[in-house]
Amino acid sequence: MDQKIFEGIQDIEKELGNLSSAQKILLATDGSVTTILDVLKGHVHIRTLVQEFREADEEIASLLDIDVGDTINYRVVVIEEEEPLIYAISIIPVRRLNNDFKEDLIRADIPIGRILRKHNIESRREIKSVSVEETTPEMVEIFQTTSPMLRRTYNIIHKDQVLVWLMETFPYSMFQD
Amino acid sequence: MDQKIFEGIQDIEKELGNLSSAQKILLATDGSVTTILDVLKGHVHIRTLVQEFREADEEIASLLDIDVGDTINYRVVVIEEEEPLIYAISIIPVRRLNNDFKEDLIRADIPIGRILRKHNIESRREIKSVSVEETTPEMVEIFQTTSPMLRRTYNIIHKDQVLVWLMETFPYSMFQD
Repeated sequence: MDQKIFEGIQDIEKELGNLSSAQKILLATDGSVTTILDVLKGHVHIRTLVQEFREADEEIASLLDIDVGDTINYRVVVIEEEEPLIYAISIIPVRRLNNDFKEDLIRADIPIGRILRKHNIESRREIKSVSVEETTPEMVEIFQTTSPMLRRTYNIIHKDQVLVWLMETFPYSMFQD
Repeated sequence: MDQKIFEGIQDIEKELGNLSSAQKILLATDGSVTTILDVLKGHVHIRTLVQEFREADEEIASLLDIDVGDTINYRVVVIEEEEPLIYAISIIPVRRLNNDFKEDLIRADIPIGRILRKHNIESRREIKSVSVEETTPEMVEIFQTTSPMLRRTYNIIHKDQVLVWLMETFPYSMFQD
């Protein structure tokens, strides 16, 4: 594991108190988060809040190593079982998608980890940051808690390029056992 | 997650009682186990018990989709921090290795997940089985417990071929919190 992420998790624990094993794994893992949620909570599904094509602004172009103005797919979802579990924002440069993958991404509410598996996509995940954030009205509304939020950002790399940029957020009060 | 693995974990829970979140994740994840152990236990290292080249017999040839007689690297390690955590057997078809990777594998006691990361290798993991096993004298000796053992087997796939076949085993008494 990247030393920066290890220290990031230590910093969070100094601020909030101990994290559970599940919380630490959800912040650090380079595996599918969908798979972890499936095994912890039962078969999860996603509820899509936003799904739209946008043009990359400077910040996004830099995150994904694409040109300003390139088309990106911007998706905001809540991964949930009976209750909401993780709030996730994904950004995908559309020109890096092959057609099958693109269809799955746009057509149906399928978690990205499951789409990658369905298409046997070989990849690697680079965790970029972990942090604790104050909650926001949107998060309070979704999770029905005022708990501080744990967050990480990471890239899914495929053929040496960023295929997906992701930000995942969940309340500190969740996954505590 | 594969339905078969989901049901396998349910069967284990029927036999042994509830598994902890960490145990279920360690059995089901398609991410690096080294990373998970790093975040749970501190920076882990490996102790190599066996490392040798062998010729593939029929069983191994079939597992790896190689020819009988092909050279394989057979490695048995204990992943440990202060105490032993996971006992792992890996089998790698040598002709699928590039030279850098091969050197790292043979030269030093580096966990496979860390070698993959160092070389930016894109891959996917296919979990093949999860099970509970009676312990053996070797496991009692290593882990100093007579607890039943949790086990999984999986493949790391790279360029559509099995790059590593792995079997990981740890005591039910470990990772319980």
